[in-house]
Amino acid sequence: MVDGVHFLSASMDARGVGHRAMASNLSDIAAMGARPVLATVALGVAAGTSEEWILECYRGMYALASEHGTKIAGGDIVRAPALLLSITVVGEVSRSRLRRRDGGRAGDVLALTGPLGASRAGLELMRRSLDIEASARESALRAFNTPAPRVAEGRWLAASSHVHAMMDCSDGLSTDAGRLAVASGLGATIVAIPTHDAAKAVAEALGEDGRTYALDGGEDFELIVAVAPRAFAHLARRFALHFGRPLISIGKLDKASGLRLHETAQPERELVPAGWDHLRYYG
Amino acid sequence: MVDGVHFLSASMDARGVGHRAMASNLSDIAAMGARPVLATVALGVAAGTSEEWILECYRGMYALASEHGTKIAGGDIVRAPALLLSITVVGEVSRSRLRRRDGGRAGDVLALTGPLGASRAGLELMRRSLDIEASARESALRAFNTPAPRVAEGRWLAASSHVHAMMDCSDGLSTDAGRLAVASGLGATIVAIPTHDAAKAVAEALGEDGRTYALDGGEDFELIVAVAPRAFAHLARRFALHFGRPLISIGKLDKASGLRLHETAQPERELVPAGWDHLRYYG
Repeated sequence: MVDGVHFLSASMDARGVGHRAMASNLSDIAAMGARPVLATVALGVAAGTSEEWILECYRGMYALASEHGTKIAGGDIVRAPALLLSITVVGEVSRSRLRRRDGGRAGDVLALTGPLGASRAGLELMRRSLDIEASARESALRAFNTPAPRVAEGRWLAASSHVHAMMDCSDGLSTDAGRLAVASGLGATIVAIPTHDAAKAVAEALGEDGRTYALDGGEDFELIVAVAPRAFAHLARRFALHFGRPLISIGKLDKASGLRLHETAQPERELVPAGWDHLRYYG
Repeated sequence: MVDGVHFLSASMDARGVGHRAMASNLSDIAAMGARPVLATVALGVAAGTSEEWILECYRGMYALASEHGTKIAGGDIVRAPALLLSITVVGEVSRSRLRRRDGGRAGDVLALTGPLGASRAGLELMRRSLDIEASARESALRAFNTPAPRVAEGRWLAASSHVHAMMDCSDGLSTDAGRLAVASGLGATIVAIPTHDAAKAVAEALGEDGRTYALDGGEDFELIVAVAPRAFAHLARRFALHFGRPLISIGKLDKASGLRLHETAQPERELVPAGWDHLRYYG
């Protein structure tokens, strides 16, 4: 994560930056069904970086890592032209529980561990003052500053042989659902875009469609899973019992390539990836 | 490693930059007596970075990693204000063979797996044209562009219970011998500064003392080890038989704190760390 590209040290809470950097790395481990064992942190400090900012950033990383039993085992600190943060997390998983994005099969149900768009809504709230309900404001800001990687959910899901593929939705549904499908050599049809209430509230206040936050916002860290269709209903019931939240069906994997959106009573249309492209300003 | 801080992409060979970045990470694993299993690479690309430069840099990393049976298992690529490279290497070692810099005991012989200063000599040759012998030129440039991390040496040494502490000498002897001593709660007396012939040749051509390259140059990646004194002669004989090069005794660890240089027929003097400080231009 680079200052000015992935975060703005001048205007963002240091602890939140540390938390989000660790969250995105833990989320990658969660998406493989693994237990995050240890993390290493390489920090580049620029001439203007304050020691207090660095300490707060570490506190944010440390608090979230500890919550998941992950040790910060080492790292490096160098000077750099901009503040930057490179985290590596090492995870552990048995071969039979390892999940990747390329294991999906045609006909699999695509499902999400939670609704999307709240993180993007939080970012909008950081940028401007908006008159929305306190509870929506609070959950949007929490989703942005202290997102929860789905480590327990990933391990639980990977324990089922009916879960064929997983990945995290950190770059937005329009981007990541397509990536899972392509990696599995398939296409996908999305029939529902689970949108977080906070995303709906913020988008409405801005005259926008909350579903675009879910499709293109990113940084939500919910997991997308591909599940054998005959096992889905039972798995979703057990998931809801265990986690107290639904495993939300959003569509299915198809033999036909491409990513389609086909909502009830709407014509089918192609979904174009418009989420985070890590090199979008490059070149 | 950051462009403009640790390397200069405009004037340095991309393959060499990749090789050296991987070497310094493998060297840290070697210094713990471990086998480097896998590496992850985070790459930040700046607006002006050419694709060919990146590919060459990866080739350099990949070739050296492969040589040591290390897989490049993943990583990340982002845009950044300057080209940067963050490598993490995961190693594996049994508990009994794990060595750290803090295990040295008073009276231990300090030894090096090879002479120092060649990398700094190579850097000088990159900067200016010098009239020196071809063989010295070649080994200086090789030491700078394609240094060899002492992975086999580290594992071999760690197999001996008489080797109490190890670290790599990547920041220069004046810095790293002191670090090992301090970590072990001790001081050290250095009685010899093994200086690479190429360092002597380049330094002489510049009217300098090759020993300052060995003391302060860094990036040599030889290992410093602390060995039980009664076991040293036998270990050094076996090392020379196995590797075809000597294990060079350079002094000993003392109860008295501080780092001293005491060469034959010279008065003892304090050695001041003047090697690489990773934050020296910071703040």
